[in-house]
Amino acid sequence: MTMIHARLAELGLTLPQAAAPVASYVPVVVAGDLAYVSGQLPFIGGQLVTGRLGEGPTLDRGIEAAHACGLMILAQLEAAVGLDRVARIVKLGAFVCSAPDFTDQPKVANGASDLMFSVFGDAGRHARSAVGVPTLPLGALVEVDAIVALSPG
Amino acid sequence: MTMIHARLAELGLTLPQAAAPVASYVPVVVAGDLAYVSGQLPFIGGQLVTGRLGEGPTLDRGIEAAHACGLMILAQLEAAVGLDRVARIVKLGAFVCSAPDFTDQPKVANGASDLMFSVFGDAGRHARSAVGVPTLPLGALVEVDAIVALSPG
Amino acid sequence: MTMIHARLAELGLTLPQAAAPVASYVPVVVAGDLAYVSGQLPFIGGQLVTGRLGEGPTLDRGIEAAHACGLMILAQLEAAVGLDRVARIVKLGAFVCSAPDFTDQPKVANGASDLMFSVFGDAGRHARSAVGVPTLPLGALVEVDAIVALSPG
Repeated sequence: MTMIHARLAELGLTLPQAAAPVASYVPVVVAGDLAYVSGQLPFIGGQLVTGRLGEGPTLDRGIEAAHACGLMILAQLEAAVGLDRVARIVKLGAFVCSAPDFTDQPKVANGASDLMFSVFGDAGRHARSAVGVPTLPLGALVEVDAIVALSPG
Repeated sequence: MTMIHARLAELGLTLPQAAAPVASYVPVVVAGDLAYVSGQLPFIGGQLVTGRLGEGPTLDRGIEAAHACGLMILAQLEAAVGLDRVARIVKLGAFVCSAPDFTDQPKVANGASDLMFSVFGDAGRHARSAVGVPTLPLGALVEVDAIVALSPG
Repeated sequence: MTMIHARLAELGLTLPQAAAPVASYVPVVVAGDLAYVSGQLPFIGGQLVTGRLGEGPTLDRGIEAAHACGLMILAQLEAAVGLDRVARIVKLGAFVCSAPDFTDQPKVANGASDLMFSVFGDAGRHARSAVGVPTLPLGALVEVDAIVALSPG
């Protein structure tokens, strides 16, 4: 068991099945030493988390959803290159399905950000953008994409 | 005629005139071996495709618009570096002008994604984010930006 | 005083205090020779500029806000790596809090784009995406993130 897998076990985290590619895009593209991870949706127990913050789902639900997006990013990286090649989480882009008066996108996005810090320590400290959007694919509550620096394979 | 131009001809595709730069930004910036393409709007027959998915324009219209954004990305790459230098379409970012209950952003974005796969084959298979937004520049129906890996010039 | 600081002084620009990191993300991550700057919010005189374009704030207020986001990007770069290492502003991503019928996101985003051109000249000419969003963190009027190429340190 590698260091990162031991750390996931220690945190009680289990990676989900990496969601299958859809159409003509793929979950991860490696260019140079950066991996670009497609926007990931939040699955908990195999079910997509849907809704809109500020119209029912609680802040905690939003944080859970962002955490689930983060876990799926890890699952995609594991499937594509192996998590042990992650040298740095460089950037997360968080899109939070939000009612017009919901402005706690940063707290929601922390669900993914805190996960990266928990798993990778300082290598998990990333740049981030978090914005509100009115609607996401399939009615998802949150979508998060990532840019990740890799160590040589 | 180069391989990519032959492929475009075979597909019956004609690149539009590359849209002129606006203000202090430019259509393409090359950094290292990556080209960053600015968000492109959908022009068909020289006319901007406007509207909001879920409020009139059909899904097929959205797909057409995303395809047009993709063609404009190709036109900008052709003008800036030449399409034959495209080594890999790395990432597309698709912003789909959407009514709050429209959740088929992935199908719309396939209009651009499928184009890249048609033109470049495996080198056109990219990472992607697709999200809904309430409004886009000039009322555009879709906006797509891109990160593209280049071979040495 | 370095060249860029002289240029800022000449333009009458003062960098704000770099906003403190929040949670498990950081303002700037350097990967290879690129700096990824987190989405920055508009502070003028230490106050966050809030609201929604098309529902009160004027276009000029939006442009001012985008300019303030740009200044904060510069402040973050200064704090993280020093502005003299900026080789090229590669890409700006502008998210403009917009009412559904507001479509002047490009004019708003020019507040940040024109700043980059003023400060860095041709090295400030960047790729850009500008989109409307219904709501932003803390009610901000605009959020802008950046990718910046650095010269060796």
